[in-house]
Amino acid sequence: MIETPYLLFLGDAPDPLAAKVAQGIKDWRPENALAQFRMEGCKADLRLPDMTLEEAKAAGARTLVIGVANRGGVISPAWKKVLVAALEEGFDLASGLHNLLRDEPDLVAVAEACGRALHDVRVPEVDYPIADGRRRTGKRCLAVGTDCSVGKMYTALAMDREMQARGLKATFRATGQTGILITGDGVPLDAVVADFMAGAVEWLTPDNDPDHWDLIEGQGSLFHVSFSGVTMALIHGGQPDALILSHEPTRPHMRGLPDYGLPTLEELRDLSLTVARIANPDVQVVGISINTAAMGEDEAMACLAGIEARMGLPTVDPFRQGAGRLVDALAAL
Amino acid sequence: MIETPYLLFLGDAPDPLAAKVAQGIKDWRPENALAQFRMEGCKADLRLPDMTLEEAKAAGARTLVIGVANRGGVISPAWKKVLVAALEEGFDLASGLHNLLRDEPDLVAVAEACGRALHDVRVPEVDYPIADGRRRTGKRCLAVGTDCSVGKMYTALAMDREMQARGLKATFRATGQTGILITGDGVPLDAVVADFMAGAVEWLTPDNDPDHWDLIEGQGSLFHVSFSGVTMALIHGGQPDALILSHEPTRPHMRGLPDYGLPTLEELRDLSLTVARIANPDVQVVGISINTAAMGEDEAMACLAGIEARMGLPTVDPFRQGAGRLVDALAAL
Repeated sequence: MIETPYLLFLGDAPDPLAAKVAQGIKDWRPENALAQFRMEGCKADLRLPDMTLEEAKAAGARTLVIGVANRGGVISPAWKKVLVAALEEGFDLASGLHNLLRDEPDLVAVAEACGRALHDVRVPEVDYPIADGRRRTGKRCLAVGTDCSVGKMYTALAMDREMQARGLKATFRATGQTGILITGDGVPLDAVVADFMAGAVEWLTPDNDPDHWDLIEGQGSLFHVSFSGVTMALIHGGQPDALILSHEPTRPHMRGLPDYGLPTLEELRDLSLTVARIANPDVQVVGISINTAAMGEDEAMACLAGIEARMGLPTVDPFRQGAGRLVDALAAL
Repeated sequence: MIETPYLLFLGDAPDPLAAKVAQGIKDWRPENALAQFRMEGCKADLRLPDMTLEEAKAAGARTLVIGVANRGGVISPAWKKVLVAALEEGFDLASGLHNLLRDEPDLVAVAEACGRALHDVRVPEVDYPIADGRRRTGKRCLAVGTDCSVGKMYTALAMDREMQARGLKATFRATGQTGILITGDGVPLDAVVADFMAGAVEWLTPDNDPDHWDLIEGQGSLFHVSFSGVTMALIHGGQPDALILSHEPTRPHMRGLPDYGLPTLEELRDLSLTVARIANPDVQVVGISINTAAMGEDEAMACLAGIEARMGLPTVDPFRQGAGRLVDALAAL
């Protein structure tokens, strides 16, 4: 559990895209995004107050979150100076970088001396159990994709926002580093040891009120041979009651696999249901989320209408249209 | 890679079953099983020569393999004395125990001082890549089960033995601790980090001669919610050309999951083919391996005949009948 609110460290981001983790935090949990910290030459701007470490501390920030992708995989000396000062000022640090905070001896030494925590959200901090498959109370929804990176996290976050706005009981459950930094909590599923993957998802989505929905962040795809095992564990550990099919219609092949074409939405529906019914015989596909970012408005609307007619399920791009119809479908279950 | 041949340490095994890892090594790789080392009160006997450390060393043994399950999860002081003496005598140590050799400071110190290796086969020793899904040369066969522990490893080892006897090109590829200790090599798949599972299986089964078969040790089951992600990664990383269906007909429910019934062989066939075709469109189910250990001879034969008639595939219990018909089916592909 990462202490909130955050001071978002944008460092010397070479462009706005490099700060997309920080942008995600601001977009989805504005209450966690107290201020931004930018170094000289920073080309990103979240339109949050710029604060010094002292100012942010005085304003109540608890954790400095590295919300920027670094170049070359090393924590630069220029960054290091700020990170050390932040620990000394009383901040915890949180990072989703490949190179870990805990592998930097100077940060470890200062954190220990100051009694601060270093959160590397790519690394599990819990000893997860082996899954026991027991049916849990409460409801769970999972987005499954034809491919990786088709908008599953966005879909779950948009549904969570809509459900909160309607006063429904819902919790977004993060399973990847960006989701964990956004919410301050979750399971970095792709870094969990194989035997404990499904158990980690059970741990993440425990018994709850009968009318409460966990909106579980999806990972990978059953059809992506590099990561399908992670998706499988997510389905069997999450034992979802509702599935959302996620798809990006313009992609020429599976991400990173030039020889692999994408499955159809029908193939995704059928395999996902077959697999999910093993853990929950009552599971249903309730809607479809299409990422139309690569299309113009007219083309996108035609695409969505065509898929809806073909599949007979509410079909939306939650970025263009919001997740209202997906939440309607969930509420109708 | 564990150096062979082995001196098999049976310790103070309370009964023969406790030494089943050592028994497996002797059964499947007798050339690796030079001798046994038994302590006072040992109730197991592999009918191998009993040797002292000195005698085994002189006879050419390279590694002392802990071939016995210990009680209570600790390495007892009585064992420790033998293990230290073995390192001093020039043996490497290999173990599949939950409690690791490398977590015992005295063993680590002696191993370092003597220049010997400690092999904990539950722990990966390689940085595996992320799977790239590239089609590889050579052929691969994988046993998939209706449940865990239905005889998948036994089936692959029996097929390997039969293929070696026929002069066919084949390699048993171990994916679990017992298999790794038997062959001295392999991937402890259930201990690999999620993102690298499929890549580890690709690494284990590289390009090979067009007429060479990898016989990949199966793990878990697509229908076992605790471990299905591991099975999925095995199928997509192994991209098998041939599948063997494995089943134990008398089991009342999935192992460790009292609320989960077993799937039918038809369900296993259909889901396994759907999933395996993603990585290899030409994959076929070639045969069925039934574990009839809980049945009398007549009942077993009737069971096998019934399944063969129903499924239209060669159906054998490789323990009772050998794996000849499964190898025939593979050769006919």
